[in-house]
Amino acid sequence: MSKVIYDNEGFFKKYSQMARSKDGLAGAGEWPTLKKMLPDFKGQTILDLGCGYGWHCRYARDQGATKVIGIDASYRMIEKAKEMTTDETIVYLCHDIQDLDFDEKMFDSVISSLVFHYLPSFEKICDQVKKVLKPKGEFVFSVEHPIFTAQGKQDWDYDDEGNIRDWPVDDYFIEGKREAVFLGETMTKYHRTLTTYLKDLLNAGFEILDVQEPMPPKEMLDTVPGMKDELRRPMMLLVKARLKD
Amino acid sequence: MSKVIYDNEGFFKKYSQMARSKDGLAGAGEWPTLKKMLPDFKGQTILDLGCGYGWHCRYARDQGATKVIGIDASYRMIEKAKEMTTDETIVYLCHDIQDLDFDEKMFDSVISSLVFHYLPSFEKICDQVKKVLKPKGEFVFSVEHPIFTAQGKQDWDYDDEGNIRDWPVDDYFIEGKREAVFLGETMTKYHRTLTTYLKDLLNAGFEILDVQEPMPPKEMLDTVPGMKDELRRPMMLLVKARLKD
Repeated sequence: MSKVIYDNEGFFKKYSQMARSKDGLAGAGEWPTLKKMLPDFKGQTILDLGCGYGWHCRYARDQGATKVIGIDASYRMIEKAKEMTTDETIVYLCHDIQDLDFDEKMFDSVISSLVFHYLPSFEKICDQVKKVLKPKGEFVFSVEHPIFTAQGKQDWDYDDEGNIRDWPVDDYFIEGKREAVFLGETMTKYHRTLTTYLKDLLNAGFEILDVQEPMPPKEMLDTVPGMKDELRRPMMLLVKARLKD
Repeated sequence: MSKVIYDNEGFFKKYSQMARSKDGLAGAGEWPTLKKMLPDFKGQTILDLGCGYGWHCRYARDQGATKVIGIDASYRMIEKAKEMTTDETIVYLCHDIQDLDFDEKMFDSVISSLVFHYLPSFEKICDQVKKVLKPKGEFVFSVEHPIFTAQGKQDWDYDDEGNIRDWPVDDYFIEGKREAVFLGETMTKYHRTLTTYLKDLLNAGFEILDVQEPMPPKEMLDTVPGMKDELRRPMMLLVKARLKD
């Protein structure tokens, strides 16, 4: 398995201090939007691709899922996820999510949060998800928005006084690797266009049920520093799709 | 009917000098992409919302449509469209496209090219198109991309030497009026998010069949000045949707 940055001890420590790590779903600005898009988990078998600390896995169980498998390429993430639950119907596996090894049509729904922009091919992911999903199975995921990943540095343009001028977009149609700094570490992400995300889903036989660019929740606008700037550009893209048959 | 800028004599003269006016479909960078998304016109009754010179209406006829209605709010556009054909199965009407007055389920397909970003409500357009379309009818349209309309001035950011630095995005989640300069005239456009375009379609009962952000055709990259910069940001959004029933 390829080395993942989340297994770097220093990086993982910094990641663990982020609101979305400490406060879980409540600390994630996109959660109110994502929550409404999730499948009805009741009685379902669920796969979470890139489960991290396992917040979504535990949520699926709370909502009545009967079996949940969370996989993540980072063993530190998987260790942390295991620490956080005693629920034996949730299984956490440290595994590369580009190379799934599950029975066909095993899952009612597949979910994934902010992972696919680390992977070079979304087409391959769609093909794999299609195989492990039951007919009419749902696939709900979030990624960094193509507008957020296009230029590469993932930072605002500033004026001479250091104030935000605007969000720079560049090289939009040049898909592929980008080097971005996150929590002080340079990491590789993959930019792809909105067209590619939707085309790969449609070509794999999915119907697009919902597409959302989440706005920050009103209650965070005044309480979380910098949150008002999140009205200035889309940071995430959330998609709900359903396998046609 | 509200006064439309295309009826301003000076503006219309400048518009008529553009490649997409003089050369028609061949002069429009998005045409190769749009062409592949269009319905199979054979035997169909077609409505073109904002038909302009009527290029798409005549194309639909060439492809076997049996009846085509093109409407446009600009009487100069309608006059020009009428001049350009003797085909009596194409009917051109000068009419506000926000207030359609056709029989229900009259059309097999509805098409529209680069018009909806001039109109305040896409939801209303979807509701109207839904009414006049037959069950399973297709709706194919292009608009200026939300990334192109967000900030408002519709121009690049330049460095001190006057070179393009990047494309500025701002106020993405603040939908509504924008003042942009086009061919020397200030015109009102309406910015809305990708989320809104797709949500309004889905809520009206459409299935999303295809979403494309057209790249400039390869043969234009070297021959048309500035065309290479079109790889740097998406300018248009093309959508193909089908009424569910």
